[in-house]
Amino acid sequence: MKTVSFKNIKLGGFWADRAEINRTVTLPTVYKRFKESGRFDAFKCDWHEGSDAPRPHYFWDSDVAKWIEAASYILCFHPDPELEKIVDSTVDLIEKNQSENGYFNIYFTAVEPDKRFAVRDWHELYCAGHLLEAALAYNEATGKDKFLRIMIKYIDLIEKVFKIEHSAQFDTPGHEEIELALVKLYNFTKDEKYLNLSKYFVDTRGKGEKDAAQNNWAGPDYYQSDIPVREFTHAEGHSVRAMYLYCAMADLAGITGDKELFDACERVFDNTAYRQMYITGGIGSASRGERFTEDYVLPNSEAYAETCAAIGLALFARRMSAVCPDSKYADVAERAMYNGSISGVSLDGRAFFYMNPLEIDLEKRRVCEKWYYGKDTYKPITQRVELFGCSCCPPNIARFVASMGDFLYSYDDDTVYIHHYMQSEAEFDGIKITQQTRYPNEGEVRITLSGMKGKKAAVRIPGWCSYVSLGGEKLAAPVKKGYAYIDITEDSQTLDLWFEMKCVFIAANPKVAADNGKVCLCRGPVVYCAESVMNDNVNLRNISLDINGVTGLTFSDEIGMYIAETDAFEDAPSDSLYFDASQAEPVKRKIKMLPYFAYANHGESNMAVWLRKG
Amino acid sequence: MKTVSFKNIKLGGFWADRAEINRTVTLPTVYKRFKESGRFDAFKCDWHEGSDAPRPHYFWDSDVAKWIEAASYILCFHPDPELEKIVDSTVDLIEKNQSENGYFNIYFTAVEPDKRFAVRDWHELYCAGHLLEAALAYNEATGKDKFLRIMIKYIDLIEKVFKIEHSAQFDTPGHEEIELALVKLYNFTKDEKYLNLSKYFVDTRGKGEKDAAQNNWAGPDYYQSDIPVREFTHAEGHSVRAMYLYCAMADLAGITGDKELFDACERVFDNTAYRQMYITGGIGSASRGERFTEDYVLPNSEAYAETCAAIGLALFARRMSAVCPDSKYADVAERAMYNGSISGVSLDGRAFFYMNPLEIDLEKRRVCEKWYYGKDTYKPITQRVELFGCSCCPPNIARFVASMGDFLYSYDDDTVYIHHYMQSEAEFDGIKITQQTRYPNEGEVRITLSGMKGKKAAVRIPGWCSYVSLGGEKLAAPVKKGYAYIDITEDSQTLDLWFEMKCVFIAANPKVAADNGKVCLCRGPVVYCAESVMNDNVNLRNISLDINGVTGLTFSDEIGMYIAETDAFEDAPSDSLYFDASQAEPVKRKIKMLPYFAYANHGESNMAVWLRKG
Repeated sequence: MKTVSFKNIKLGGFWADRAEINRTVTLPTVYKRFKESGRFDAFKCDWHEGSDAPRPHYFWDSDVAKWIEAASYILCFHPDPELEKIVDSTVDLIEKNQSENGYFNIYFTAVEPDKRFAVRDWHELYCAGHLLEAALAYNEATGKDKFLRIMIKYIDLIEKVFKIEHSAQFDTPGHEEIELALVKLYNFTKDEKYLNLSKYFVDTRGKGEKDAAQNNWAGPDYYQSDIPVREFTHAEGHSVRAMYLYCAMADLAGITGDKELFDACERVFDNTAYRQMYITGGIGSASRGERFTEDYVLPNSEAYAETCAAIGLALFARRMSAVCPDSKYADVAERAMYNGSISGVSLDGRAFFYMNPLEIDLEKRRVCEKWYYGKDTYKPITQRVELFGCSCCPPNIARFVASMGDFLYSYDDDTVYIHHYMQSEAEFDGIKITQQTRYPNEGEVRITLSGMKGKKAAVRIPGWCSYVSLGGEKLAAPVKKGYAYIDITEDSQTLDLWFEMKCVFIAANPKVAADNGKVCLCRGPVVYCAESVMNDNVNLRNISLDINGVTGLTFSDEIGMYIAETDAFEDAPSDSLYFDASQAEPVKRKIKMLPYFAYANHGESNMAVWLRKG
Repeated sequence: MKTVSFKNIKLGGFWADRAEINRTVTLPTVYKRFKESGRFDAFKCDWHEGSDAPRPHYFWDSDVAKWIEAASYILCFHPDPELEKIVDSTVDLIEKNQSENGYFNIYFTAVEPDKRFAVRDWHELYCAGHLLEAALAYNEATGKDKFLRIMIKYIDLIEKVFKIEHSAQFDTPGHEEIELALVKLYNFTKDEKYLNLSKYFVDTRGKGEKDAAQNNWAGPDYYQSDIPVREFTHAEGHSVRAMYLYCAMADLAGITGDKELFDACERVFDNTAYRQMYITGGIGSASRGERFTEDYVLPNSEAYAETCAAIGLALFARRMSAVCPDSKYADVAERAMYNGSISGVSLDGRAFFYMNPLEIDLEKRRVCEKWYYGKDTYKPITQRVELFGCSCCPPNIARFVASMGDFLYSYDDDTVYIHHYMQSEAEFDGIKITQQTRYPNEGEVRITLSGMKGKKAAVRIPGWCSYVSLGGEKLAAPVKKGYAYIDITEDSQTLDLWFEMKCVFIAANPKVAADNGKVCLCRGPVVYCAESVMNDNVNLRNISLDINGVTGLTFSDEIGMYIAETDAFEDAPSDSLYFDASQAEPVKRKIKMLPYFAYANHGESNMAVWLRKG
């Protein structure tokens, strides 16, 4: 199965709007913050004790690398010499400070050079992986290969040290990332040694004796290193680490046809999607360890649900779609795409969330802090900020939004898989596909296909949809694993699809303690939430939703989606502390709800995705 | 208004059963634990560094004093030379170790004699108050006056040091108690100097400069010392401290006719009862500071609700009833009596709760501790234990249960107030009152009155009751502040009262976050709870109660009350993590509920007072 790069696809609609903000605001904003915080200058590798410059952190390479990757994706459609200049000058610094043997890392050059390849937990190979992804992207965008040559030299060193000589003080990366980057390098170079190095890291994981000696406070499961990857039964540990590893596992399974590895991927995917994922696509529910916890443990106020983890889940799901088309993968990718990933950036593109809780109750926080737990317990921030000390999410969003087209299609000789619906024009391998649609706001999708006569178009039936029509008739094509396989008989053929898109109130499994007795309004792939600031500062705890009521929709230009206004009840105020419940009639009212990703754009507010079922 | 002592009343029914367990099990159990822990031997005052004996704590005098008070109450009905011997030998030790000037306190004699009257926070006057209550009780029970003479000598010293010479290093007790004990001493001796000393402490509170200099971490409101007591608008600070102070304030207001002081009492009472009280009569919702917090802040799992505080609330409410008969006081006393106070002792009388939460969710605790907050956050214990390091509650329950009759009646020249309904025979001031009733299990109460011709019987209409009949007819007597004033026209007259007693589902004010969308089953004054252990280990979070359903009742000999079985719904199990709420039909089932006070008597279990409204 081949994938279609975003470079072959021109997007319109919702994602084009987000991409434009990403290009014009987010990318320069993140650049400015990274410049101010010393991340770019750190590539000079001249920091020393007593120096005025801030001390580099061991993950700084990766922050800038993700920014370069995002910039490269943007350069594919928007040539920009000034932007290239920033990248080129950074690459020059990398070249200048690359060691003779190929080594490059800011921290382990300027701060602790004697700790190279010594501490598993310190993100050294993670940084190498991100730099490699950036180098590949920049090469593809501009044709300039200096950065890539530098990185290949470094990767060759890594192969030597880790795979050939085993001379490092650990066996596999403490933070996965390089594994998937090596697959990208293999795909680009077709040099099997990079594929083999990726396989080596993946297969050595959970077996390395040196790794076992280096576990931090969080234990080996935190690093997905307690058992060999092929034995995985559930998603575990640090959620971003997990997703990046699973991405590489899926890539390798696809390329090598390794059924055992694919089965492990499917197990961790299913566990993630059906036991440990927020309805927003957020994963990693605990702040301590930024990690997966246990099945059904999905608290809302205390949710961690890191932006990077939702992005990682989408990337993993996308890879699974390309290995084995099953709509469950694209369903999950879509959930993460429209909800828990882009909630990480403000509508204006300027500010970021690292954690993405599903509830904010300012009064509950105040009371807990004042009378119960003190200040030390974890509380997600309530308004986005422009920079975090740990700043992985902002550039991750930038590269994710800039390469959204990657999600749309994959194909083999017989079939083109249409995984997602977006206003778009694509051209690849003699095939042209145009999608005319207002998706995710409307279910109508007109798909015009050319160059596909004699092939099949496999169109995904979204999991949220219970009725699909084609050309006004109920879709009759055979459906397999959530894809309808439609024979294409014309040189140019139009498919008028309609996915019935209703407002639906979703309940969570009774085992999810936080959601017992509650429902969540969804429409298509979009998860809604209520903000008190949009609702006369009502106490959201006193609201219950009328699941048999009516929901009105108003399009918001600011958000690019519909705002919903739904029938609800508000607990009647009372002077009594306790009273006969049968005498307490709630008051009917309307509640405005907005797409989850757009919360916290209108001032400090309480927010809830899950509200009581009325 | 005069009150009627428990000594004039022979109880039957529920409270007689509890009192019998109290006498035969609780009193000896507490004695044994106090003996083993060194509390009794500590009265030898011979502890020294390096001694084998445990170091006395500065509240040990009070623990033993409350035990002596309980023993004395029991001795009134059950002469017991062995029991008297224990008390006598303790009194001998007190006599032996009383200082020349009258001072007595174990800790400040054996451990830190140079700290006498120096540290406001160290319970010195609190201990003196409890010893005084014990001495009065023992004198009344046995006629032996040695203990009382010792205590009067000590009290005279306290008057000299605090009120005349102002030579102590603080102005008023850090833990109130002596104020109400001084009123008891005044009532017994009629010597106004004791009343005046009580008034002095009450009126100096919140004004003392030396007090202000001795605030601990919790601030002056913790000690009810931030403002003068007459300015109180709400209940604040450490809840047991608050209740004991309010008791003295109510006593003083009643004796002196001080309207300003009574109004302050009514304000703190109303705030407690209508803004800060659990439905069980538990108060002081926060563990940190064992204290009142804010209006409507009443979390269930994290409830502190100390046993002593519920007892204190009952004692305060009883005093308010005696000053100004308004049924709200006896309603609150009754709520505390049948629920949040006696929950502090096991059905077998052997083990005790200090905190009385309204919810136990073992899974939530485990998850919170493992993944979220760690081990350090407050969690109430789930099973009663035989001794606490801080052991105020066990002997407090013992003295409370042993003097339950105190709550029944008060009277003036014209009217006898019948505040509570219990199987009982009373005789006082030429009046005989017999109550034949199965209250609180049934609403029928046959009251036979003699010696009251020409007077009125003011019978309380419980707040939970919406229909009352007298002699089979709807009660027609004039009602004022919740009391029906019935003319007594015969030498011996029988009132056949019936208080309609239904199962009612109670809701909490919408401002109580913990109870939003939930209801609580109550019947008469009894609050019910569900335990998973009685319900096939069902997850109580998945249960909602059918408030239009039927509740069956089965009498439990073990509990002395009815067990309820009520119509409920259980969330249907699901394999999905998320699903259309309109397709999710809950499953009808029955849920057994038991009186709250009897929870945790049948093994480790989840428990909930508040369950979702179905």
